[in-house]
Amino acid sequence: MEHQITYAPIEWLGDKVRLLDQTRLPGEEIYIETDDYRVVAEAIKELKVRGAPAIGIAGAYGVALGALKIEAASPEEFRARLAEVISTIAGTRPTARNLFGALEYLQKAAQTGKSVAQIRNNIIAAAITIHEEEAAATHKLSEYGAELIQDGDTILTHCNTGPLATTGYGTALGVIIRAHEQGKIVKVFADETRPLLQGARLTCWEAQKAGIPVTLITDSMAGYFLNRGYINSVITGADRIAANGDTANKIGTYSLAVLAKENGVPFYIAAPTTTIDPCIVTGAQIPIEQRSPDEVTHVQGVSLAPAGVAAANPAFDVTPHKYITAIITEKGIIRKPYKAGIKSITSVA
Amino acid sequence: MEHQITYAPIEWLGDKVRLLDQTRLPGEEIYIETDDYRVVAEAIKELKVRGAPAIGIAGAYGVALGALKIEAASPEEFRARLAEVISTIAGTRPTARNLFGALEYLQKAAQTGKSVAQIRNNIIAAAITIHEEEAAATHKLSEYGAELIQDGDTILTHCNTGPLATTGYGTALGVIIRAHEQGKIVKVFADETRPLLQGARLTCWEAQKAGIPVTLITDSMAGYFLNRGYINSVITGADRIAANGDTANKIGTYSLAVLAKENGVPFYIAAPTTTIDPCIVTGAQIPIEQRSPDEVTHVQGVSLAPAGVAAANPAFDVTPHKYITAIITEKGIIRKPYKAGIKSITSVA
Repeated sequence: MEHQITYAPIEWLGDKVRLLDQTRLPGEEIYIETDDYRVVAEAIKELKVRGAPAIGIAGAYGVALGALKIEAASPEEFRARLAEVISTIAGTRPTARNLFGALEYLQKAAQTGKSVAQIRNNIIAAAITIHEEEAAATHKLSEYGAELIQDGDTILTHCNTGPLATTGYGTALGVIIRAHEQGKIVKVFADETRPLLQGARLTCWEAQKAGIPVTLITDSMAGYFLNRGYINSVITGADRIAANGDTANKIGTYSLAVLAKENGVPFYIAAPTTTIDPCIVTGAQIPIEQRSPDEVTHVQGVSLAPAGVAAANPAFDVTPHKYITAIITEKGIIRKPYKAGIKSITSVA
Repeated sequence: MEHQITYAPIEWLGDKVRLLDQTRLPGEEIYIETDDYRVVAEAIKELKVRGAPAIGIAGAYGVALGALKIEAASPEEFRARLAEVISTIAGTRPTARNLFGALEYLQKAAQTGKSVAQIRNNIIAAAITIHEEEAAATHKLSEYGAELIQDGDTILTHCNTGPLATTGYGTALGVIIRAHEQGKIVKVFADETRPLLQGARLTCWEAQKAGIPVTLITDSMAGYFLNRGYINSVITGADRIAANGDTANKIGTYSLAVLAKENGVPFYIAAPTTTIDPCIVTGAQIPIEQRSPDEVTHVQGVSLAPAGVAAANPAFDVTPHKYITAIITEKGIIRKPYKAGIKSITSVA
């Protein structure tokens, strides 16, 4: 049984990009079609496209759209104007590694052509390659990860890591979808993932589409279910993985990892190697995006707290590698010591 | 400086009770005035009155209202009909100990009179005593607890435990308010406390009223701030404390306790001794209320998840005593071993 993904979160249309607006899900399936890289940048900032691999892909297509519109008399002029486009896309969200990896790849592609037309084509080709490789990586890592899932398992996950987040199979949810396809009976517990509810809105929607039984819980309930033996493993995605295995992911992931360890439940990270940042030695160096307090004080426009109250909104936290049982990548499953495993995988790349 | 509490969550009016509808806060201060014990029972079920001590007090006044309306020819008939009233009030919420303690106290009061009029008066007097003693206990425990707070501390708390939850000073928030009154500089981080947002709605409101700086966070952010050294101590209330110190409290408390321990931050429970249930040996025996999935899938009527998704909604969890640094009561601060400390305090009572 092969899973048919019936929705395309990001599509390249040759001179435009088509994005599924994830802020409108699950209520409405609305697509944004644009030829303007600034619209793509706004879509990333506002989480219309989110998920580390999907941000990288959308960002790459944003640069491709920018490249299509640059009128330049020379390769030098073209590259100078392209740098502005890349800078706008780079300024959208700071934490996920994939975006910066994609931009570096495009930067290199921009050095290869001899004419403006050639460079432009190289950039578009490179963006398409990024998309294809990220999607292929999720298929491979899902295959590896599915080996860690037993028939009858209940898996807790956080935020959203399915096709929406990757345009491929998914990372953490991809692993679960693949295990389900293999005929294993699996159940999912989905953390709602406040403040922006990617778990409630998107993971539940994707699990339903894949035919996998899902139970929604608030983030604060994860400990209860871990402690009472409901959960066989926890799997989440990642936004950036340091050279030592420390992993930045959606706020709340660190708590899950600590609670999993305390209760003897394995805790896995699933991510393509494009999420690994070998230049960053430990998680302490990963920049954490601080978002608007309004996302905490409001839900879908409804005020939850008294007027004027202060709120904090770190969008990610860092899970020290000691809490991570294994990291599932498209090049295999990495186990401790992570430094050596990550080095061997990233130096092959 | 003495804190002036300018709102009365529960008031006895002689033949009626007046309840501040906490589900409407912080948007509106709406009071329910009723002489019908069934209205009180519904208010407890629907969390219009909540907080373990406040549930006990409201429940007691509910029984008093019931007693006022019973027409009976004999004490025996009166007591038989009173048992129905008590049964309705007992059937509202299963976890908090204070309600059952209050009902046992009223049950005893009902045995003391020789005429219907006498019994009725005894019950009303007993309900007022329960109210006064719970309020007085919160003042005393706040005084003890404030000793654990240093000038400059930032305290993380969960759910709501201020005057709204107790009609007195509060338990966990009472401790913080008392430290603030003593002139200590204190700051509060308030978990929003999904699903029903007592932290966002009520703790922020009460902290603002008391003039204490408060920062609202989602429940999933607590680990981030504990891990990064923002928090000097965690204090929560309790709904039921077993003889060994295991403590049931609002869902999410267990996670905070584990995260506090992991990061070397003290974790305190603040509760009057009426919350202790010495007949319950360990936390495993505490009944956990399972509430409607709608509270998880919706916020204030707004749907958060795709239609038809399953959701779980345990309203409480149990924190094993090993994670608890101390239990703050009106009879002093109990430390490990809790079994001995709790025995000595409850046998004095």
